[in-house]
Amino acid sequence: MNNVNVGNVTASAKKNIEINSDMGEAFGLHSFGNDQALMEIIDVANVACGFHAGDPDTMEETVAAAKAHGVRIGAHPGLPDLTGFGRREMKLTPAEVESIILYQTGALVGFLKKAGLELNHIKPHGSLYGMLSRDPELMRSAAKVAALYGVPMFGLAGTAHESVCAEMGVPFVGELYVDLNYNPAGQLIIQRRPEATDPAKAAERVRRVLDDGLVETSDGSTVSIDFTSICVHSDAANSPAVAQAVRSALGGR
Amino acid sequence: MNNVNVGNVTASAKKNIEINSDMGEAFGLHSFGNDQALMEIIDVANVACGFHAGDPDTMEETVAAAKAHGVRIGAHPGLPDLTGFGRREMKLTPAEVESIILYQTGALVGFLKKAGLELNHIKPHGSLYGMLSRDPELMRSAAKVAALYGVPMFGLAGTAHESVCAEMGVPFVGELYVDLNYNPAGQLIIQRRPEATDPAKAAERVRRVLDDGLVETSDGSTVSIDFTSICVHSDAANSPAVAQAVRSALGGR
Amino acid sequence: MNNVNVGNVTASAKKNIEINSDMGEAFGLHSFGNDQALMEIIDVANVACGFHAGDPDTMEETVAAAKAHGVRIGAHPGLPDLTGFGRREMKLTPAEVESIILYQTGALVGFLKKAGLELNHIKPHGSLYGMLSRDPELMRSAAKVAALYGVPMFGLAGTAHESVCAEMGVPFVGELYVDLNYNPAGQLIIQRRPEATDPAKAAERVRRVLDDGLVETSDGSTVSIDFTSICVHSDAANSPAVAQAVRSALGGR
Amino acid sequence: MNNVNVGNVTASAKKNIEINSDMGEAFGLHSFGNDQALMEIIDVANVACGFHAGDPDTMEETVAAAKAHGVRIGAHPGLPDLTGFGRREMKLTPAEVESIILYQTGALVGFLKKAGLELNHIKPHGSLYGMLSRDPELMRSAAKVAALYGVPMFGLAGTAHESVCAEMGVPFVGELYVDLNYNPAGQLIIQRRPEATDPAKAAERVRRVLDDGLVETSDGSTVSIDFTSICVHSDAANSPAVAQAVRSALGGR
Repeated sequence: MNNVNVGNVTASAKKNIEINSDMGEAFGLHSFGNDQALMEIIDVANVACGFHAGDPDTMEETVAAAKAHGVRIGAHPGLPDLTGFGRREMKLTPAEVESIILYQTGALVGFLKKAGLELNHIKPHGSLYGMLSRDPELMRSAAKVAALYGVPMFGLAGTAHESVCAEMGVPFVGELYVDLNYNPAGQLIIQRRPEATDPAKAAERVRRVLDDGLVETSDGSTVSIDFTSICVHSDAANSPAVAQAVRSALGGR
Repeated sequence: MNNVNVGNVTASAKKNIEINSDMGEAFGLHSFGNDQALMEIIDVANVACGFHAGDPDTMEETVAAAKAHGVRIGAHPGLPDLTGFGRREMKLTPAEVESIILYQTGALVGFLKKAGLELNHIKPHGSLYGMLSRDPELMRSAAKVAALYGVPMFGLAGTAHESVCAEMGVPFVGELYVDLNYNPAGQLIIQRRPEATDPAKAAERVRRVLDDGLVETSDGSTVSIDFTSICVHSDAANSPAVAQAVRSALGGR
Repeated sequence: MNNVNVGNVTASAKKNIEINSDMGEAFGLHSFGNDQALMEIIDVANVACGFHAGDPDTMEETVAAAKAHGVRIGAHPGLPDLTGFGRREMKLTPAEVESIILYQTGALVGFLKKAGLELNHIKPHGSLYGMLSRDPELMRSAAKVAALYGVPMFGLAGTAHESVCAEMGVPFVGELYVDLNYNPAGQLIIQRRPEATDPAKAAERVRRVLDDGLVETSDGSTVSIDFTSICVHSDAANSPAVAQAVRSALGGR
Repeated sequence: MNNVNVGNVTASAKKNIEINSDMGEAFGLHSFGNDQALMEIIDVANVACGFHAGDPDTMEETVAAAKAHGVRIGAHPGLPDLTGFGRREMKLTPAEVESIILYQTGALVGFLKKAGLELNHIKPHGSLYGMLSRDPELMRSAAKVAALYGVPMFGLAGTAHESVCAEMGVPFVGELYVDLNYNPAGQLIIQRRPEATDPAKAAERVRRVLDDGLVETSDGSTVSIDFTSICVHSDAANSPAVAQAVRSALGGR
């Protein structure tokens, strides 16, 4: 992991750190998350594209809501598994990974075109995100789509997310998670149904990592995390409070 | 129906009439149609976009095959009904019609972008095609997507397909069908599983309509059909022979 | 409509009137409705079977919850349209209607078998319910499945629901709706996203119909409704309060 | 592997060996396999139940066709992945495995009930079959459903298929495959799109295994295979010829 020295984060550095959130994960009449409240707080929305959640009407509404709030929009493609919300790993070939990401990204770009907006980035969802962090060959499939659109990939520094982007000349945005635990190796522990996060703890994680670059792991040890964007999930009922706490820790806006 | 006088079709007019076919309607391991043989004959492919058929890998392969044959590519969006192959009418709102067409067209444009190609047109599939021919409000939803991409809509002259395009300034390409029957009102009789077509009869229909502008209907009467593109479906086992017969009737290539 | 004289409903008649509710309409991580609170109040659950909502795990959990509360369980099969929640009409053949109801009912009976329970009834969902009320041929398809399992159909008295059951010797249970409006012809006005219902008005509708057999319609006129079961939808946030108000109007339990 | 001594197979033993085939793997208008021809030859049909293939109408038709040919019917439940035809492994929990097998088996039992038939067995499909052969915990989930219906599981002797059935008292039917390769450890090598099989080689495999109990593996070594049912896949164009060759090797019928 190429860790930058973040021991002395200046106010301007803090301001460059963005908050992103997965948005548009409703499906038809089945609502999901706290999009409306979060749109007021976040900088960047990762918009679901129909495979794990997010039907076409929801995509249209989510793009319109993000535009109204000045929130930049990236694609959030997932595994083709509505029942499992894209959180059940599937064995896909590299060609399949590329084609499902290209299909979903293309679909979102259609809605962006209608709204007069440009694609900001690509951030794979759920188990696909995890698969790509561990498998450079699959990650190359995703990075090809990002290269095609000329946008960065969001991901985890120190994993195949970052190394493949570097190898292929694709811009990379490292993420910090405030509502998932890290294992001692610095990998995210993904749960099918995430637990609620204490906003104060989320803010404390942000303050510490800005101060000394370290995040506490599941066994009490620490790991250094390199990032320029902080992800707040929308699942939990209190996610807007978590996002607001993170915003405050970043110096407000 | 603004019928042009086609009584004296010149060789050059014949050459301007194109053959289009619905392509890429496989789904995973479930193959469909006769794409490989038809790509040798047709001018324009309407590529399925995932809702009634056509998974992402099939879309990728179909775009590549069309490119290799110099066949131009349009979007062929359908109703969200894999089981019914988009041939079962569904009551959708105008907003839903627009968003499912925009979603599917955007997805296809992703694969075209990868192949370095431009979108040629939009031709709705199956029952969606029929719904739009009868309902101007739904047709406006489709035409908005065509206007967004600056491409023509394919459809039936003398129906809402044509009148809405005229009203909205969207270019329109009228189609002749050689493997479906017309009722006395000039409307297509759509079947869930089309019967095989005699290539000689298909060629005869083309020759007659080029000669006097008329097509025989299901009750033996005739109706005048205005078109610049001829659709040959890929379902039937002998569809390549039908397409070849049409090509010969158009003066070969 | 064979209206029984309900002008002098006795306490015992009141007690025979049941409350039913559509349950298990979650889909994976996408929750729906207020199942937990409603299970405390209702007599009969119509359990979603996977086509409009209700994945296999949700079905398993819903059957277990109903069993724990002594709530009887019927199948609630819907149109194959997750995005539209089965609330978008589709043109299906009688054979298709029978096979989708048989498939879904069979699947539910699998979970009932595991729980050691018997199927109580079949109540089609959403637009399928409406289609069957208007089309005797489609209704015959549904009634065949009820006959196969030897259970009653739930539906609207005075429509094809009732007449086809009578014709085929299938027991019929007429329903009263307290959270949907009736038009002057006595038909339900179905909305994609129902509005909240005032519990006091729901109770008032029940008291009046028990008193004089009449329900007020959308234009202020009245219509007589024959029923032995009252449906309370689970969508609205206050649906448990509505169910409780209906329970009280029935004399509590 | 509890290998029976098959060195001196008598004519009567040969006659007890059955041929099974996966049937009903069409999906709507997308046909699949060679069901019609195979129904003439096989003893047992594993009927797809909607998740990897096999819509409700196809299930109905397949059950009717098997009944007409006196072919016994088992459930062939698959992973919820139409695009991948259930041949892409998915990480499911034991509870999910049980509920998807119970759901699909229940649905098939509905069609059997209509046809007046009993369920013969359960044979999981594709990657689910492979997952269960390697993971006893997942296999227990499947065996619970077989126990509930009082039917045997089909599977591979010497794997968790067999050991879990033994542990749970569920009858087990070992299978021989004539159109897939075995690796030196006796495991099947599953391909997304199987290659065509030479009928003569399939017959030769059957004759040899009946003679000395051994099957040649991918590296030329041999492995002993214990079975009472032979599976012939329906995918390949020549699958009826393969099935007929196997039938002849078994002494005809």
